Amino acid sequence: MPKPKRQLVDEAAAGNGLLNRRTMLRGGLFAAGLGVAQAADSIGADAPEWMKTPGRSFSAYGMPAKSQDKVQRTFTAAAGRPGTGVSRTPVHLLEGTITPNGLHFERHHNGIPDIDPTRHELVIHGMVNRPLAFSVETLMRYPMETHVRFIECPGNSGGYIGPQPTQATAAAINGLISCSEWTGVRLSTLLQEAGVAPGARWVIAEGADAAAMSRSVPLEKCLDDAVIALYQNGEAIRPEQGFPMRLLLPGFEGNINVKWLRRLKVMAEPVNARDETSHYTELMPDGRARQFMFVQSVKSMILKPSFGMTVKGPGFYEVSGLAWSGAGRISKVEVSADGGRSWALAALSEPVLSKALTRFRLPWRWDGRPSVLMSRATDETGEIQPTRAAWLAQYAPGQFYHFNGIQSWSVEADGTVKNVYI
Amino acid sequence: MPKPKRQLVDEAAAGNGLLNRRTMLRGGLFAAGLGVAQAADSIGADAPEWMKTPGRSFSAYGMPAKSQDKVQRTFTAAAGRPGTGVSRTPVHLLEGTITPNGLHFERHHNGIPDIDPTRHELVIHGMVNRPLAFSVETLMRYPMETHVRFIECPGNSGGYIGPQPTQATAAAINGLISCSEWTGVRLSTLLQEAGVAPGARWVIAEGADAAAMSRSVPLEKCLDDAVIALYQNGEAIRPEQGFPMRLLLPGFEGNINVKWLRRLKVMAEPVNARDETSHYTELMPDGRARQFMFVQSVKSMILKPSFGMTVKGPGFYEVSGLAWSGAGRISKVEVSADGGRSWALAALSEPVLSKALTRFRLPWRWDGRPSVLMSRATDETGEIQPTRAAWLAQYAPGQFYHFNGIQSWSVEADGTVKNVYI
Repeated sequence: MPKPKRQLVDEAAAGNGLLNRRTMLRGGLFAAGLGVAQAADSIGADAPEWMKTPGRSFSAYGMPAKSQDKVQRTFTAAAGRPGTGVSRTPVHLLEGTITPNGLHFERHHNGIPDIDPTRHELVIHGMVNRPLAFSVETLMRYPMETHVRFIECPGNSGGYIGPQPTQATAAAINGLISCSEWTGVRLSTLLQEAGVAPGARWVIAEGADAAAMSRSVPLEKCLDDAVIALYQNGEAIRPEQGFPMRLLLPGFEGNINVKWLRRLKVMAEPVNARDETSHYTELMPDGRARQFMFVQSVKSMILKPSFGMTVKGPGFYEVSGLAWSGAGRISKVEVSADGGRSWALAALSEPVLSKALTRFRLPWRWDGRPSVLMSRATDETGEIQPTRAAWLAQYAPGQFYHFNGIQSWSVEADGTVKNVYI
Repeated sequence: MPKPKRQLVDEAAAGNGLLNRRTMLRGGLFAAGLGVAQAADSIGADAPEWMKTPGRSFSAYGMPAKSQDKVQRTFTAAAGRPGTGVSRTPVHLLEGTITPNGLHFERHHNGIPDIDPTRHELVIHGMVNRPLAFSVETLMRYPMETHVRFIECPGNSGGYIGPQPTQATAAAINGLISCSEWTGVRLSTLLQEAGVAPGARWVIAEGADAAAMSRSVPLEKCLDDAVIALYQNGEAIRPEQGFPMRLLLPGFEGNINVKWLRRLKVMAEPVNARDETSHYTELMPDGRARQFMFVQSVKSMILKPSFGMTVKGPGFYEVSGLAWSGAGRISKVEVSADGGRSWALAALSEPVLSKALTRFRLPWRWDGRPSVLMSRATDETGEIQPTRAAWLAQYAPGQFYHFNGIQSWSVEADGTVKNVYI
């Protein structure tokens, strides 16, 4: 990737105000200037009240500031089934790349089981030389590894197939994605201990929830980078994420990363479980459905600015968002401010990790005229996000899983942000 | 760093059972074998009760599993002053490198202020061409950057100067360290906007807490990698960590990363504030004290096994811990199982980031005899942890800030773990 030198002056990188990603800000931007008297004043008697009384004490487990009570997951459950549905990460209100554990998106098929970790076991059986059972305590003795990985629901952004663009926040549209530092035991270690029999090609993973949610996983993936995850961002994996353990299949669609993992059955064929036949398939123009399309394709979303925010008049802004690919590292993200006529290379926040969220940023000097912002990610395999139209053309009408088309926000003259189709 | 090939068989890497860090486990370790009948049984009617009833619903902000209620910060406050003291991260109960926000260690000098973010301002004044005031909303418009960084209290591990080793958990001894992904505005951007006057060499940072905690920071650091942090692990910085903003000085001792940051005064000389004169200095053998020793030196700690855990009989274990350096990246961590007579290279979890916690791991086959485990980190500048004796010899008796000596755990024949001095 080219590495332009840091610029001391603005330099156009693409049309309609996009600046070189190495642009350094020059003085006189947004801060309020203070007179000398004001500056002195601020030191003295007018200290805020919270400096005049001792603050509160320590806590065993901290929580966000009270004023952050809008930074929440929003959820939708099926009628009469409060544990079946999704909750979304408020991606437009977050920064960086790590999702705090309390805000990781959720997808449950019959609620969150209240598992006693001292009684939970992971059983490996089927086409193995030696069926094995692992308690949590036993798994804790195995060698562990740590990786930052995203998990994305294959239904994320499915609203983009609608005839009109949904006017809703980035979280409402794209919030079924989160990213954590996961730690656990490499699954291949456990499979090698059990001894995979000749002819085995699939592993059926089953959760200990009240749906016994099950998926068929290619044995090849189980012997590659699959992990039995026990920790999430340092602490024990959360109940919503599969406590005491989940299957982590880096880059694969969220649903197959089976939570509350209870059993792995090694088999010759897939089981054709409910969630790999009635859901998460791809309906093709000829009426047939593609099954087992596991890898989440390269994708990106602009979060600042996005729907619900107001761009406050002409001037400098940082356009910022997230990009990811289930196939590996993001190699570049391009941003357009003129509806796709010209594109500028965004800066990627280091380190750029495989199968993890990557934050991109680009300076933009908005001239106050209506503008359309878009982002387009490319991954290390050379895959690039298609346009919405090109994505739709691949499938039969109604297909909405695995949408990864380019997304667009229009910034209106009054600074409001709308979802638009280009 | 040498990259040995993956070994398919055990290979000794140092004395007393330490194995090559690339060792792959062979079959037959710890899992319970199941008969065919047992494996079938586990599928049927004896499903656990949590699979037989719908689980609980979604939540706006999630919390850890109930069974994790021992994974907490432990705190010590001054008598009669509930907001003055420290809380410790339960480092021995965590994994990976990221500290969840609810468990980040705390050090407060007069409690946690309850700040109204709409009224909080950061003022830059003193030897500047143009004093400036930044609201939170204003700062949000500036270009941001994201980095994973550790913060360590300079008093962390100070108990090691005692004549007898403290028998306490790794958290009680070393828990004043945490690591987060921080996002904020580069301080140099703001200082350039204010315009630093000739002759300026220091910046006095003041917090908006009821102690108005203040420290003098070299201007050079403020123009280097210093950040005004607004986000921590993706969400708004926590109240205990400085909401709505803190000064982040990567690699510098925790106290100078001023929380609830209110003012930065550019000056020619340091202010000699209370916390840089009465605290955090280094008492030398000649009776003088060294001041402004900002950088946290290279250090490591073994967390598994550690005090409070029992090693359950001879066999395979993974020795695991954390290493860090305020001067940059960790270049290697060596582990000894024979009290320092021989050392083996541990595996470092990728990515190894500058001024961030690095997880190290090494396989160990314990033969059941009393053993002493030690870890020794080296950073990219070539600095290496000294022995405890060599560290103590640098200073006058009573000096305990900035302890970074090699630490040792003995594993007794009955599997209990003790803190020992070697």
